[in-house]
Amino acid sequence: MGQTNEFAHRMASKTIKLVDSSGYPVGRKEVELKQTNHKFLFGSGIFDAVQVANKSVSADRLPFLEQKLVKFLDVFNFATLPFYWGTFEPEKGKPKTKELKAAAQWLKERNVAVKGHPLCWHTVTAPWLLDMSNEEILKAQFARIEREVSDFKGLIDMWDVINEVVIMPIFDKYDNGVTRISKDLGRVGIIKEMFAKTREFNPGATLLLNDFNTSINYEILIDGCLNAGIPIDAIGIQSHQHQGYWGREKLEEVLDRFSHFGLPIHFTENTLTSGHLMPTEIEDLNDYQIPEWPSTPEFEERQANEVEEMYSILFKHPQVEAITSWSLSDDGAWLGAPAGFIRKDNSPKPAYEVLKKLIKGDWYTNVTCKTDDNGMVSFEGFLGEYDLVCGDKKVSFILDKDAESVRLVI
Amino acid sequence: MGQTNEFAHRMASKTIKLVDSSGYPVGRKEVELKQTNHKFLFGSGIFDAVQVANKSVSADRLPFLEQKLVKFLDVFNFATLPFYWGTFEPEKGKPKTKELKAAAQWLKERNVAVKGHPLCWHTVTAPWLLDMSNEEILKAQFARIEREVSDFKGLIDMWDVINEVVIMPIFDKYDNGVTRISKDLGRVGIIKEMFAKTREFNPGATLLLNDFNTSINYEILIDGCLNAGIPIDAIGIQSHQHQGYWGREKLEEVLDRFSHFGLPIHFTENTLTSGHLMPTEIEDLNDYQIPEWPSTPEFEERQANEVEEMYSILFKHPQVEAITSWSLSDDGAWLGAPAGFIRKDNSPKPAYEVLKKLIKGDWYTNVTCKTDDNGMVSFEGFLGEYDLVCGDKKVSFILDKDAESVRLVI
Repeated sequence: MGQTNEFAHRMASKTIKLVDSSGYPVGRKEVELKQTNHKFLFGSGIFDAVQVANKSVSADRLPFLEQKLVKFLDVFNFATLPFYWGTFEPEKGKPKTKELKAAAQWLKERNVAVKGHPLCWHTVTAPWLLDMSNEEILKAQFARIEREVSDFKGLIDMWDVINEVVIMPIFDKYDNGVTRISKDLGRVGIIKEMFAKTREFNPGATLLLNDFNTSINYEILIDGCLNAGIPIDAIGIQSHQHQGYWGREKLEEVLDRFSHFGLPIHFTENTLTSGHLMPTEIEDLNDYQIPEWPSTPEFEERQANEVEEMYSILFKHPQVEAITSWSLSDDGAWLGAPAGFIRKDNSPKPAYEVLKKLIKGDWYTNVTCKTDDNGMVSFEGFLGEYDLVCGDKKVSFILDKDAESVRLVI
Repeated sequence: MGQTNEFAHRMASKTIKLVDSSGYPVGRKEVELKQTNHKFLFGSGIFDAVQVANKSVSADRLPFLEQKLVKFLDVFNFATLPFYWGTFEPEKGKPKTKELKAAAQWLKERNVAVKGHPLCWHTVTAPWLLDMSNEEILKAQFARIEREVSDFKGLIDMWDVINEVVIMPIFDKYDNGVTRISKDLGRVGIIKEMFAKTREFNPGATLLLNDFNTSINYEILIDGCLNAGIPIDAIGIQSHQHQGYWGREKLEEVLDRFSHFGLPIHFTENTLTSGHLMPTEIEDLNDYQIPEWPSTPEFEERQANEVEEMYSILFKHPQVEAITSWSLSDDGAWLGAPAGFIRKDNSPKPAYEVLKKLIKGDWYTNVTCKTDDNGMVSFEGFLGEYDLVCGDKKVSFILDKDAESVRLVI
């Protein structure tokens, strides 16, 4: 357990008064305080949960995917599920609500928090929007937000509301309905509308703005949104590093620039590969298409080192509240990149072991101590969920920054 | 007179009923309709007006500066006066209010509209701000705005409220008070505060945001400001083209991107030189310091062609309401560049003649016509101020888009 000052913001002290069901102190007993979950969100994109939860995959592939999810559950407590309009509702009026609900439910039952990604984006948006007037597209976009946010309330209470707005109105790779309406509304205008609509149907949800653009453009956009009163709960930063790890200096510089808004920061889409680097002259990562992008032992070591440094920097930063790796596995990874923590055969790479050691070891609290005559015991630990085990009895509690002392009945 | 459709937005038709002092129609008389001023603002920086109005220059230089101003008045109807805090109030509490008032008055008497530049900027700001806390700097900045805007109300009703905000909080060439407070307030925040304060002390003034950055950064900043309810009256665009004329394509692209906000656009600081081009590798124009930057006949022809094309494109664009050339003369021009319409000896370059022909010829209305039996006469002309001359009598009127007909007493 790394109880150093650099993690003070991730920890709390608590004094527990342990009593039995009659209210008598449980004195002079050995108790184990075992962390069972992090408050911090360690996530990954886990689109396979849709197929596993719905068993909508061939019988020989299902066990493989189930095994992949075991690897996910061993380390992570946070999942991003796909709500791309174009794949969620490829045919107008036939959304995959049932399939996504099953996946969200499957994850929730396993104590995994779920984020929906994204409600509004110009890429992979519904192709049938192109047949509509701009007024109709906006109405359809509102109706889609109302439907998904209402249908999933309680299962999904965190949304990437709108994605990549810096480029949205000038996106020119192909015509699409969302770029069309973003031109009408302007960047801040479309963000304002989409946040208002999402908030309307889930007032308590955590709502993110998300972008791969980490330049001054995104800073000014956020600045404008906040001054326009848009209720952004967290700033989403993508960090697909197929062309090489940003490194400490850039990472800290980005954190510095985006933390001055005083909002929580989520690293929403992180990629560090265990393969050769994509050439830097590629501007749109989607343009890099190669038949084979192997994971190699040498690059797996590099990936493990980068993962260790990057996660440590982010976990140390008081405003970062979530890190999502975009690909858990090389199997099915975006661009065919060896971007996973596990290989195509589900075997863990060094990065997986390194991350597991941090999340479930160095940054996890498991202590044994003894209650005093009055049943009191004090401890300090990483924020999250805990079991207190005493003999054959167990009681669960949450360690947060709110209360210094608590009475537990065992 | 260029009464073609491309200038329809700059023109109006008017029917005048001319009557004598007893109210009888002045029928079947020849009248001259002579434009005396443009509605459109054709301007230049004319800092020499301070010295001329105050006669605060050596006796041998004064006639030279007066002659320069004659050249200005022959063509232009709009002047930018310097309100750089560091030169306006180099010693705290001793502002050059009297000197600037004399200059503004001098210009106003000559029917020249005046803009103050700028109320808030990180460059040439008051050095004594550095001794203050950020709270004190902000108070001083507010007090400075209150003082200048109040003192000059009626003389100066147009202000570049805040200058170059895109770079303001990350400006790192030297420490300064304005960058310090912009870091606290954020970009949109400092714009909001400065506009509110300026508006408070001159509610009817025309207030500009001004920047040399014409990238997506400035677009997003404006978008944020407008969504935050900041009352920007006109978008100021700098266009110092020491490194070469933008050309039609870039100019139209910039107009296209900044006109979709629906606001008037002012080209606030235009430069086209009649010398060699500054190398493009120079990033901050201020870094280019050379002993001599001559104006040559060859480059004077180029400048004249560029001026003709650029002014024509801007005058044709319905949202552009002002063009200010930063330097009237090579004498005293920024960076020592041959950026003027006149040379160091006050002799006009071809660009001066070209521009005069456009402003006072092609885009100016002078017609002679005859009233009918009822004293009626109709005409179409460029928007602005007019004299109607009939025999030895004269009456002035304004041609605008508001009223189709007017009754004039002569």
